[in-house]
Amino acid sequence: MLISSLQNIRVKQVVTLSKKSSERRKQGLFVVEGQRELMHCVGHGLKIHSLFICDDIINNVENDSWERLTSQQNVFHVTPDVYDKLAYRSGTEGVVAVIHTPDNSLSSLNLSDNPLIIVIEGVEKPGNIGAILRSADAAHADAVLICDPLTDLYNPNLIRASIGAVFTVPCAVADSDDCIRFLQERNIQILTAQLQDSELYYDTDMTLPTAIVMGTEATGLTNQWRDAAASHIRIPMLGSLDSLNVSVSTAILLFEAVRQRQQI
Amino acid sequence: MLISSLQNIRVKQVVTLSKKSSERRKQGLFVVEGQRELMHCVGHGLKIHSLFICDDIINNVENDSWERLTSQQNVFHVTPDVYDKLAYRSGTEGVVAVIHTPDNSLSSLNLSDNPLIIVIEGVEKPGNIGAILRSADAAHADAVLICDPLTDLYNPNLIRASIGAVFTVPCAVADSDDCIRFLQERNIQILTAQLQDSELYYDTDMTLPTAIVMGTEATGLTNQWRDAAASHIRIPMLGSLDSLNVSVSTAILLFEAVRQRQQI
Repeated sequence: MLISSLQNIRVKQVVTLSKKSSERRKQGLFVVEGQRELMHCVGHGLKIHSLFICDDIINNVENDSWERLTSQQNVFHVTPDVYDKLAYRSGTEGVVAVIHTPDNSLSSLNLSDNPLIIVIEGVEKPGNIGAILRSADAAHADAVLICDPLTDLYNPNLIRASIGAVFTVPCAVADSDDCIRFLQERNIQILTAQLQDSELYYDTDMTLPTAIVMGTEATGLTNQWRDAAASHIRIPMLGSLDSLNVSVSTAILLFEAVRQRQQI
Repeated sequence: MLISSLQNIRVKQVVTLSKKSSERRKQGLFVVEGQRELMHCVGHGLKIHSLFICDDIINNVENDSWERLTSQQNVFHVTPDVYDKLAYRSGTEGVVAVIHTPDNSLSSLNLSDNPLIIVIEGVEKPGNIGAILRSADAAHADAVLICDPLTDLYNPNLIRASIGAVFTVPCAVADSDDCIRFLQERNIQILTAQLQDSELYYDTDMTLPTAIVMGTEATGLTNQWRDAAASHIRIPMLGSLDSLNVSVSTAILLFEAVRQRQQI
């Protein structure tokens, strides 16, 4: 089926889902653009609601999973005009899909025997959360817990910044109380990144089951996390400025855990 | 003196300098916004060409260096309308300054006895370069060498992303040949970040005089850097994706050097 009208109801649905987090929540759906992101999405078990392809833009993709994808129901072909309206960003290769939001509860997580978890509290910028997810993928972290979020996980800018890691890394969204209980019940040590009363991160043993907890650059962590911590850890600030970007700090701490664990 | 006309020649100069790197190069001037950035700038010896203050916006700043700054010649007070035109971004506290571009040649650098240097080749995004400078400040790196740049160092978005580190970290801009010669003449080992033929970064000795060389996520490093390297180093990619953000990778490598050096 070819959609050529900008007024088509499915086209309007995509635009609304891209723009409004309230609609994403209400409908349990979100939007993905680009072949790579879509393949990560499907490869990690997410379900497609509807798929829009602009044949004038898309490059020939010759592989089996793509064939299977595009031979399903709910595949719509669209004109370049309609694609322009569907696409949140430019240069996205002629593919947009609506996806069913997966279960992001704490109980959906399957942890390894020696978990390595990132917790972020109050981090708002989609670009930072996306970059943190990307680092979590690279470090093969067990999960990223997002506490009291100000940005929903399926914000288009977050998906883009994560280059698909939002689909490859197990994520849970919950309030801080539930996250702390979840970690304590599993004997996972809580390490909070903070300058006050802290030890240098590389002097801290991260070979145990570990959750590294990051707050925002501006306000830091809430007391409930500080109080729950086994240790407070800091990255030495040796220059003139007093903070690092939160996605950069997270990566430094996460890969110190990787280093220590690979040298056991 | 109060400037209230949007057609004022100094106002036009600021706008042109903010927008055009060619004008920044030609005039040897660039624009800084915000009190914090300006104080870092002046604190590290850069010279103010002209300073614009909007008294309706600025908060009272009561300290001596600010007093000295604003009692100099070439301080202009502007109306809110004019400030809106001068300011590249919003929320910048009523202060904009035109600054003389410092010497960014290799010969301007003063290195410590055991230098730690970051080299970036072909990195384009101002946000990434700014974040790298911020990490270089935190790690107290001796210098950042920017090879064959595609973005000038005084791009407003770069200054902003660096939160002033572009002023606190010694920077040099040069072509790759000159940078390689500079490092080799000083017996500084070159470590190139690359996946092929590489060893794990934490297995590499970074306590020696070291330059860590980063290319772009898309195309990596040129052969001249690969050939000049003492070692090729890689961050293990343990997940589903195949790359990290370049500013994140740089920080991981840089802080491994910090860790090793603080444990000597």
